[in-house]
Amino acid sequence: MPTLASSGDLIQLMDPDGKYFIFRLVPGQRLETHRGIFQHDALIGQAYGAEVRSHLDKLFYLFTPSTADIIRQLKRSSQILFPKDIGLILLRLNIRPGMTVLETGTGSGGMTLALAQAVGPMGRVISYDVRPDMQNLARRNLEQVGLLDRVTLKLRDIKEGFDETDVESFFLDVGNPYDYTAQVYRALRGGGHFGCLVPTANQVSDLIISLQREMFAFIEVVEVLMREYKPVAARLRPMDRMIAHTGYLVFARPVTRSAQPAADAETPPDNEAGVEQEQNPEDLE
Amino acid sequence: MPTLASSGDLIQLMDPDGKYFIFRLVPGQRLETHRGIFQHDALIGQAYGAEVRSHLDKLFYLFTPSTADIIRQLKRSSQILFPKDIGLILLRLNIRPGMTVLETGTGSGGMTLALAQAVGPMGRVISYDVRPDMQNLARRNLEQVGLLDRVTLKLRDIKEGFDETDVESFFLDVGNPYDYTAQVYRALRGGGHFGCLVPTANQVSDLIISLQREMFAFIEVVEVLMREYKPVAARLRPMDRMIAHTGYLVFARPVTRSAQPAADAETPPDNEAGVEQEQNPEDLE
Amino acid sequence: MPTLASSGDLIQLMDPDGKYFIFRLVPGQRLETHRGIFQHDALIGQAYGAEVRSHLDKLFYLFTPSTADIIRQLKRSSQILFPKDIGLILLRLNIRPGMTVLETGTGSGGMTLALAQAVGPMGRVISYDVRPDMQNLARRNLEQVGLLDRVTLKLRDIKEGFDETDVESFFLDVGNPYDYTAQVYRALRGGGHFGCLVPTANQVSDLIISLQREMFAFIEVVEVLMREYKPVAARLRPMDRMIAHTGYLVFARPVTRSAQPAADAETPPDNEAGVEQEQNPEDLE
Amino acid sequence: MPTLASSGDLIQLMDPDGKYFIFRLVPGQRLETHRGIFQHDALIGQAYGAEVRSHLDKLFYLFTPSTADIIRQLKRSSQILFPKDIGLILLRLNIRPGMTVLETGTGSGGMTLALAQAVGPMGRVISYDVRPDMQNLARRNLEQVGLLDRVTLKLRDIKEGFDETDVESFFLDVGNPYDYTAQVYRALRGGGHFGCLVPTANQVSDLIISLQREMFAFIEVVEVLMREYKPVAARLRPMDRMIAHTGYLVFARPVTRSAQPAADAETPPDNEAGVEQEQNPEDLE
Repeated sequence: MPTLASSGDLIQLMDPDGKYFIFRLVPGQRLETHRGIFQHDALIGQAYGAEVRSHLDKLFYLFTPSTADIIRQLKRSSQILFPKDIGLILLRLNIRPGMTVLETGTGSGGMTLALAQAVGPMGRVISYDVRPDMQNLARRNLEQVGLLDRVTLKLRDIKEGFDETDVESFFLDVGNPYDYTAQVYRALRGGGHFGCLVPTANQVSDLIISLQREMFAFIEVVEVLMREYKPVAARLRPMDRMIAHTGYLVFARPVTRSAQPAADAETPPDNEAGVEQEQNPEDLE
Repeated sequence: MPTLASSGDLIQLMDPDGKYFIFRLVPGQRLETHRGIFQHDALIGQAYGAEVRSHLDKLFYLFTPSTADIIRQLKRSSQILFPKDIGLILLRLNIRPGMTVLETGTGSGGMTLALAQAVGPMGRVISYDVRPDMQNLARRNLEQVGLLDRVTLKLRDIKEGFDETDVESFFLDVGNPYDYTAQVYRALRGGGHFGCLVPTANQVSDLIISLQREMFAFIEVVEVLMREYKPVAARLRPMDRMIAHTGYLVFARPVTRSAQPAADAETPPDNEAGVEQEQNPEDLE
Repeated sequence: MPTLASSGDLIQLMDPDGKYFIFRLVPGQRLETHRGIFQHDALIGQAYGAEVRSHLDKLFYLFTPSTADIIRQLKRSSQILFPKDIGLILLRLNIRPGMTVLETGTGSGGMTLALAQAVGPMGRVISYDVRPDMQNLARRNLEQVGLLDRVTLKLRDIKEGFDETDVESFFLDVGNPYDYTAQVYRALRGGGHFGCLVPTANQVSDLIISLQREMFAFIEVVEVLMREYKPVAARLRPMDRMIAHTGYLVFARPVTRSAQPAADAETPPDNEAGVEQEQNPEDLE
Repeated sequence: MPTLASSGDLIQLMDPDGKYFIFRLVPGQRLETHRGIFQHDALIGQAYGAEVRSHLDKLFYLFTPSTADIIRQLKRSSQILFPKDIGLILLRLNIRPGMTVLETGTGSGGMTLALAQAVGPMGRVISYDVRPDMQNLARRNLEQVGLLDRVTLKLRDIKEGFDETDVESFFLDVGNPYDYTAQVYRALRGGGHFGCLVPTANQVSDLIISLQREMFAFIEVVEVLMREYKPVAARLRPMDRMIAHTGYLVFARPVTRSAQPAADAETPPDNEAGVEQEQNPEDLE
């Protein structure tokens, strides 16, 4: 028994080239596309996965939109995060249903949306931004997909710090993250998870210095590259071009140093060159 | 007010080189490491993130383990998935709190664990495997971290198909995925999400053929590469070596073709060369 | 004392965006560009490296063109090789001044030109192609840069084999290289160098089978990726996009098996999985 | 008629795993390997490409060594350059038979050897180093392969500058290249080719600043990555691990600015963000 599209569903119409439209089904409304018009009423009651056709007889598929596809088409006025990065960030920050996570800045709400989806209806995302226009845009984006009730938006210059303490995970997405590590440290639980994305190598260096000063340990810097293939069985080959860079991901964990000096003069846990093998989180077996 | 480690907590002790131990705190027990012994009783009541020291005065940090770190140290007799791949799979399969997801095979339970964590206490992972020894290993691994109650393990040759239908997402991790696409198609909801990881290019080609035959559309083939940097501010550079290959990720969506022939002779939606730009899910703005 | 541009020199005028024109200085002629006109007479006698200006006062630099820049702007009707691949091919095929090298097909003459440059005035490039139009195009391209005298162009279906034997190096650039390995084997010196570029993974598999059948050993398959950075000191970061794929490079060496069966049952030298470390030609010290 | 190994030839014996020995054939001498002994006299007169066997009946192949294989096995006390980088450097510096090229530092002579091979018997490599021990090692390495007569080794602190002027190409391989760009500028011909390899991003930034100050233009920063595949036709896949980083390659061209101020306020030709497409030297057609 197939699942049918109902009034009120958030749906995705995708054409054979992968272009798509995400919208909510409302009786009486219609969608105009570059390939013809759809009446919502004609879509309500159709099975998900089915071929549907515009008034020009152009083919589309009726889907439920994925979080990744929703994020990709958000109205935005800032750089958006990519699935390749979002996936690893969610995992490394240990985002789980029911938890509370902090984020700065909100931007257009792309990462906010991914976090809200991952923490689920019992979790909470608290997202700070200093720009009211951005938060309004994010609010509309979150509302449109029904996730606003999981999110608290706070309009604030984060130089003043955060209301929250003992938070398990923090994602920092601002141009000058090195200016806020003290504030982030105070908001995070000991041993919590810090993540950040910065576009340039210079920012990475500045952030490392700042993190080391503020008692963050186990600093990791990684890049994620995604390479797509043309899905042709007899002529399998990568696409000619790819996204070569979105940003450097920096992860770290706040620790509390004990008062007494380290008797055994351990090297600090900041992933220096020599320990490459040990700290590789993807060691082959 | 810091969060303190309590009896019964699953904790992680990490040394400055990033080597770690994950175990549950039980009063009266002790942990023996290559860097000395810890009494559980001495850890209970310590703040998370704190420096703790073995009887040899060797430094460790007291953490809550992340899902990624738990997976990395699972007892296993099969290849394990890496965070770089798991992150994208969870996103592309649209895994969310509360949903039901199918997986085959269970293997050592690494992906099962990641899925169980992501669907949360209200969700369910149904995992098939033909080998009882593997499922027993996976069962122990899941039990150890308290996630077994979210998972249904089924011992079955999947040639016979699956009990479930109308499932939203399916992750297939077997050596010959092209032999089971018909069975997977019947288990999936129309427009659902199919994902698979295969190590060789030949398997990718065979899988594409099989998916196209079984009415899967929007086939995507990608590789995820993660490049780590030495986190040294004044000498920032990538690590000398990296994991160059774990597998090719193949994603697709089951569709239902309408009975009538396609009047407008559309090209089938299998991402042929010409539509590269259009289907790039990571298009820069 | 700077080097001055003389009548008859092949020169390159490059604008600040890196767009350029390569042409020979001829007294009395003129060059028309999108940024204004240059009289050759005004360029003759200028120092190389100097700023020169069009009649619209637009800035260009006066350079001697590099081989790479010449190849990049060749008139062509076929795919061209990229510097990242050409560089490794020249090295792996052990191309040196004074030697003779075979090439098939000629195409637009891009690789022919690179080979002709590398073997020098005492060397020789023998290039086969079955299409007269391609060889005529290549001939004009080579003549324009003064390298035609180092090249012998042969119009031939290479199914019939090659006139030459005992050649040290062979570069094969055709769509079905697996159909010609017997012919290539007969042209090559024992222990010589074979190289090939193919765009798809399927071609690589077919070529490996063909090479193994024809007594080629030490088969290597590699991809070369080049990632460019924005050269901004304070904001160092990779370019947003890159060329993700040009082709797979396949190298092999023809050997002669001795008559007697291998008494010690050695594994054949075709770089099987197990010897990965040993054969890595880029082993770090 | 096969080419036969003669007394005095520089040869390479390669075992099926790709391990090899490079040495000169001398009547009466013998080679001891981990797989048995070879008498030089038994090798003299054998055909290149032939299977030859040690006194333990272990299989080797008789080859002429390539430049890349020679460099790989050089005795060395410094980091060596890799073929993936050498190939692009030779191309970008426009190294050709008969030309003169400058290099600093000599190191163990790996790049010196590659340059000497590429300029041929009519060319010349002038290589500076401040350490006599390194130059002595390089001298022995070059002598062993018969290329010392193409090389002039100069023992010098390059802070004092170079004897040469109007040189077409310069390869700078020192830890602090940004300290010597003025000296390099004076040695180079206008519009010549400058290349440098540095391991860290910080060095790249410092070098860019230094190059811009010294009237170098068209600065390019690239990384070359080489990914190897297991050459198994039925199970084609990349090797599990790869070299992730050797260094950043920086190329630039010295120009001479004209006296008058740039009337049309052109942006300087340093590859700023906005001109990415234009300056991509590997633009697909």
